[in-house]
Amino acid sequence: MKETLIKEIKRVELKNPILIEGLPGLGLVGRITTRYLIKQLKAEKIAYLYSPHFPYYVLVGKKGSVRLPRGVFYAWKNESGANDLMFFTGDCQAQTIEGQYEVSNSILEFAKKYNVKTIITVGGYRMEVKDKPKVFAAATNQNLLKMALEAGANVSSVGNPIVGAAGLILGLAPFKNVEALCLLGETRGYLPDPQAAKSVLEVLFKLLNFSVDLADLEKEIVKAEKIIDRLKKVEEKRVLQAEEIKKERDKRITYIS
Amino acid sequence: MKETLIKEIKRVELKNPILIEGLPGLGLVGRITTRYLIKQLKAEKIAYLYSPHFPYYVLVGKKGSVRLPRGVFYAWKNESGANDLMFFTGDCQAQTIEGQYEVSNSILEFAKKYNVKTIITVGGYRMEVKDKPKVFAAATNQNLLKMALEAGANVSSVGNPIVGAAGLILGLAPFKNVEALCLLGETRGYLPDPQAAKSVLEVLFKLLNFSVDLADLEKEIVKAEKIIDRLKKVEEKRVLQAEEIKKERDKRITYIS
Amino acid sequence: MKETLIKEIKRVELKNPILIEGLPGLGLVGRITTRYLIKQLKAEKIAYLYSPHFPYYVLVGKKGSVRLPRGVFYAWKNESGANDLMFFTGDCQAQTIEGQYEVSNSILEFAKKYNVKTIITVGGYRMEVKDKPKVFAAATNQNLLKMALEAGANVSSVGNPIVGAAGLILGLAPFKNVEALCLLGETRGYLPDPQAAKSVLEVLFKLLNFSVDLADLEKEIVKAEKIIDRLKKVEEKRVLQAEEIKKERDKRITYIS
Amino acid sequence: MKETLIKEIKRVELKNPILIEGLPGLGLVGRITTRYLIKQLKAEKIAYLYSPHFPYYVLVGKKGSVRLPRGVFYAWKNESGANDLMFFTGDCQAQTIEGQYEVSNSILEFAKKYNVKTIITVGGYRMEVKDKPKVFAAATNQNLLKMALEAGANVSSVGNPIVGAAGLILGLAPFKNVEALCLLGETRGYLPDPQAAKSVLEVLFKLLNFSVDLADLEKEIVKAEKIIDRLKKVEEKRVLQAEEIKKERDKRITYIS
Repeated sequence: MKETLIKEIKRVELKNPILIEGLPGLGLVGRITTRYLIKQLKAEKIAYLYSPHFPYYVLVGKKGSVRLPRGVFYAWKNESGANDLMFFTGDCQAQTIEGQYEVSNSILEFAKKYNVKTIITVGGYRMEVKDKPKVFAAATNQNLLKMALEAGANVSSVGNPIVGAAGLILGLAPFKNVEALCLLGETRGYLPDPQAAKSVLEVLFKLLNFSVDLADLEKEIVKAEKIIDRLKKVEEKRVLQAEEIKKERDKRITYIS
Repeated sequence: MKETLIKEIKRVELKNPILIEGLPGLGLVGRITTRYLIKQLKAEKIAYLYSPHFPYYVLVGKKGSVRLPRGVFYAWKNESGANDLMFFTGDCQAQTIEGQYEVSNSILEFAKKYNVKTIITVGGYRMEVKDKPKVFAAATNQNLLKMALEAGANVSSVGNPIVGAAGLILGLAPFKNVEALCLLGETRGYLPDPQAAKSVLEVLFKLLNFSVDLADLEKEIVKAEKIIDRLKKVEEKRVLQAEEIKKERDKRITYIS
Repeated sequence: MKETLIKEIKRVELKNPILIEGLPGLGLVGRITTRYLIKQLKAEKIAYLYSPHFPYYVLVGKKGSVRLPRGVFYAWKNESGANDLMFFTGDCQAQTIEGQYEVSNSILEFAKKYNVKTIITVGGYRMEVKDKPKVFAAATNQNLLKMALEAGANVSSVGNPIVGAAGLILGLAPFKNVEALCLLGETRGYLPDPQAAKSVLEVLFKLLNFSVDLADLEKEIVKAEKIIDRLKKVEEKRVLQAEEIKKERDKRITYIS
Repeated sequence: MKETLIKEIKRVELKNPILIEGLPGLGLVGRITTRYLIKQLKAEKIAYLYSPHFPYYVLVGKKGSVRLPRGVFYAWKNESGANDLMFFTGDCQAQTIEGQYEVSNSILEFAKKYNVKTIITVGGYRMEVKDKPKVFAAATNQNLLKMALEAGANVSSVGNPIVGAAGLILGLAPFKNVEALCLLGETRGYLPDPQAAKSVLEVLFKLLNFSVDLADLEKEIVKAEKIIDRLKKVEEKRVLQAEEIKKERDKRITYIS
C-alpha cells in the first residue's frame, strides 16, 4: 500500500446519488451526523478506503479483532425521493499535508465512479455557542448555497478557512466537475457534540427532503449536556479553590508588609 | 492532484515579458507590492497554480464561495514600453521543503512557456527600520544587479539567506537559463508593511521605466502607522504597569528585610 | 536505496513456516522476546531489511565496524514439530508514517515468499503491572485468537490501538491473505522488561508446542529487578528530601505570618 | 529538481582516486578539514550536488550574488603518490530522513563514476576534550580500520551512532562495493573547532602519505582559543553574579525567619 486505496465490497446501482461526507473533526460533528444517518437509514457498506497517510496503528475491536484505521462508503436507496444517498465516514483524517490532498482526491474519484454530481461535506465550526447551534454553509456553486440557506443554513463568515477533508473536497470538486456544499454546525469543539449534529441534520432534511427519527440523538444530547454540567461544576470548584488560596496568600503578604 | 499543477485560464501574446513574483512573507511586502501593481495596472488573470504542498484547507470568500489556496499569474500589456509584465502572487507558500522546490520550479517552468528571460522576486528583509525603508538587491547576474543599484537598491549583506520562493526562484533560475533579481524591502516584519512595499515599488519604477499612482498605497501606509502607534501605546502602558508592580513588590521586600 | 529493501543472505527450505516479529517498542518486550528465541534456538540469519525511513545514522559495533540500522530475518528448522519458525527483529522502527506502512508491507511480502500463512507479532502493553505480567492478544482471525486464549493470553481491551509494526502487520495481513496474531506483554514500558518477555514466551510455547530453556532470561529478570529497586530507592530519597525542604519552607512562612 | 542532482562542471582523469567527504556537523570538523585541504592543495571544482532536501533558501554572496545551498566535488592530482584525491564538502546536510539517504547515495554514485574504491568521511565526535583531541575511527573493512589505527586513530566506542552523511556513506558503501572509513575528531561541538580538524588532518597525512602546510590552520586555532577564553570569562562572571544574588536573597530570608 503505497497510496490511498479503495477496496470495493459490493457494487450497487444508485439513482442520481448525492454523497454526504463526515470525518472526525471539531466536536466530531461530521462523524456523528453521518454515522447517525447511516444507522437510522440502515445504509449498506459498499467500500473501504485505506491510506498510508492514516495513523500507523491498528484499532482493536470487540473480541480481540483488529483492523487498520479506514474510511467507509455506504449506500442508501431512497425509495421515495429523486436521489439515492451515499455516505463517507471513518476513523481519522490523513496525518500529512500531501495525504490530506490524496485522500480527498480519492473520495472524489470514487464518487465520480458512481456518477455523483453533488457532494455535501459536514463538520463543526468553533464558536462560543449560546442557544441552538447555527449551521454555516459554503459551496462551490451559488445555486447549491442558496438551497442550503433556504433550508436554514447561514452564510459562513469570510476568512475562516475550512480545514481538512470537509474543506478540501470542496476545493478539489471543481477539478472533477462535481458540485459541493459544506455544512458546519456551531460547536465549542472540545467534546463530541450531538447538539451541533442535530442542527446540521435539520438542514440536511429540509435540503434533501427526507428525514429520520431523532429520538436516539436526543438521548445523546441529554448525555452530553450532563457531561458538560459536570465539567462546569468541576471547573467552578477549581476556580473557587484557586481564589481561596490566593486570598490566603494575599492576607499573609498584607500582614507582612 | 499529486503534484503542483498550473491551470491556464487564458493564453495571451506577450512581448519580452518580465515576471514579478511576490508571495506572502515578512511584512507581506512581496504580496502587497505585486497585488498593488496588479490592481493599479488592471492586469489580467491568465493562470492558477495549485499544490498538494499548500495548506490543507479551503478559503471562504464573500457569499459563501470557497476555493483552494492557490497562486495566480497575471499579464499586463505595456503599450509604451519594451517589456510586457507578468505577475505571480498567491495565498501562501508551500508547507514542506520539497514543496518549496517544486512550487518555485513550476513558477519558472510557466515563465519559460512565455519566454520570460528575467524574473524579479520581491519580499521583505527583517530590520529595525528607522527612516524610509531601504531596498536590498541580489541577483543571478551582475548586470541585472547593477541596474537595480542604479535604480536605488543597495547590495544585500553577505550571509543572510533569502528564504522561500523569493530566494529559491533565484537559486533555480540558472538551471532554466533565466536571469533573476530579488528586491527586499526593509521591514520589522510582524505586521503588513505597505511602507516597505512603497520603497520596493519605487525601485521597480526606475528599473522598469514605468509607474502607477501611489495614492491608494499612501492611504494604507497612514492606516498601518496608526495601528503601530496604537500597539506602541499599549506596549508602553504594559511596561509602565509592570514597573509599578515591581516597585510595589520591592518596597515590601525592602520593608521586610 | 529509494525504498525499503530486502537483501537475502541465504535461501532455505522451510516447512509450513510461522513468522514471529518483534521490533523495539514499549519495554523492548518484542525485541527481547524474539532475540531470546533466536539465540536459544540458534536460528539462522537469512535476510536483511534496510529502509530510507530508518534513522539516518550508522551503528558502531565492536572493533570499529559499522552498519546501517536494519531488520533481520532468521529461520529455524523445527525437527520435531509441524511448523518451522521464521523470526524478524531489528534495531528500530520506521521514523515516518508512510515508512511504517512501507516497512510492515515489506515484512509481509518477504513472509509470502516463504509461504508463511501465519504471523505472530509480539510487543509490550503499557500498564501498572502488579503481579506476573499478563499477555493480551488480538488477531485477524477468531480461531487464531481462541488458540492464543487457550495458551494463556487474555483478550485485549477495546479502544487501545496497537502502534507500530506489531499492529500494522495485523492490519495489512488480510490484504495478503495472511493470518496474524499479536501478543502484548504488560509492562511499565520505560525500561527493558524481560519479565514481560517471559510471559509472552510462555504463551508462545503453549501455542506453538515448543520451548527453550529460560535460565538466561531469569538472570536478566533478576538484573532488571535490581535496577528497578535502585531507581525506587533514589526516587523515595528524592521525595523525602522534597518533603523536608517543603516543611522547612512552611515553617518560615508560618513564622512570618 | 525532484531529486538530488549532480551537475558536472569538468571531467578529469584521476588515478585510483580516494574521496574525502566532510559536511557541516559537530564543531564543523568535517567541513573545516576538507575545506582546508581543498584550499592548500588548490584542488579543482569538478561538480555540484543540489537537492530538494536541502534548506529552501538561497545564500547571498559578496556583491549580491546568490546561489542554492549545494555540495561541491573537487579533484586533486597527486603527482608524487599512488592515489589522486577527490573531496566533497558543502553548505548543509539534507533536512529530511529520506533526503539523508538520497544525498549519501548520490555521493556514492558519483564516486563510483570515478572508480573510487575507498571513501574517507570526516567529522566531529562530542566529548569533553581535555588535551589534544583524539581521533576515532570506524570502517566497513578491518584492513582499512587497522591502517587508520596505525596512523594514530583510536577505535570508536561501541553504541554511539555516527549521524548524517559521515555515517550513512559508510552504511551504504557496501551496497556499492566501496570501502569506507570514518575519522571523527573529538570536539565540544558547539563552536567551529580547527583544533579537532588538525587532529583529523594528522591522521589523514600518515594514512595517505601526504601533507600540507598547517600554518594557516594554526592561526585559526589561536583565534578559536581566544573566543573560547572570552566565553569562559563571560560565563565565570555570570556564575559569580548569580552567586552574589543568591547570597543576598539568602541573607534576607535568614533575616526574616
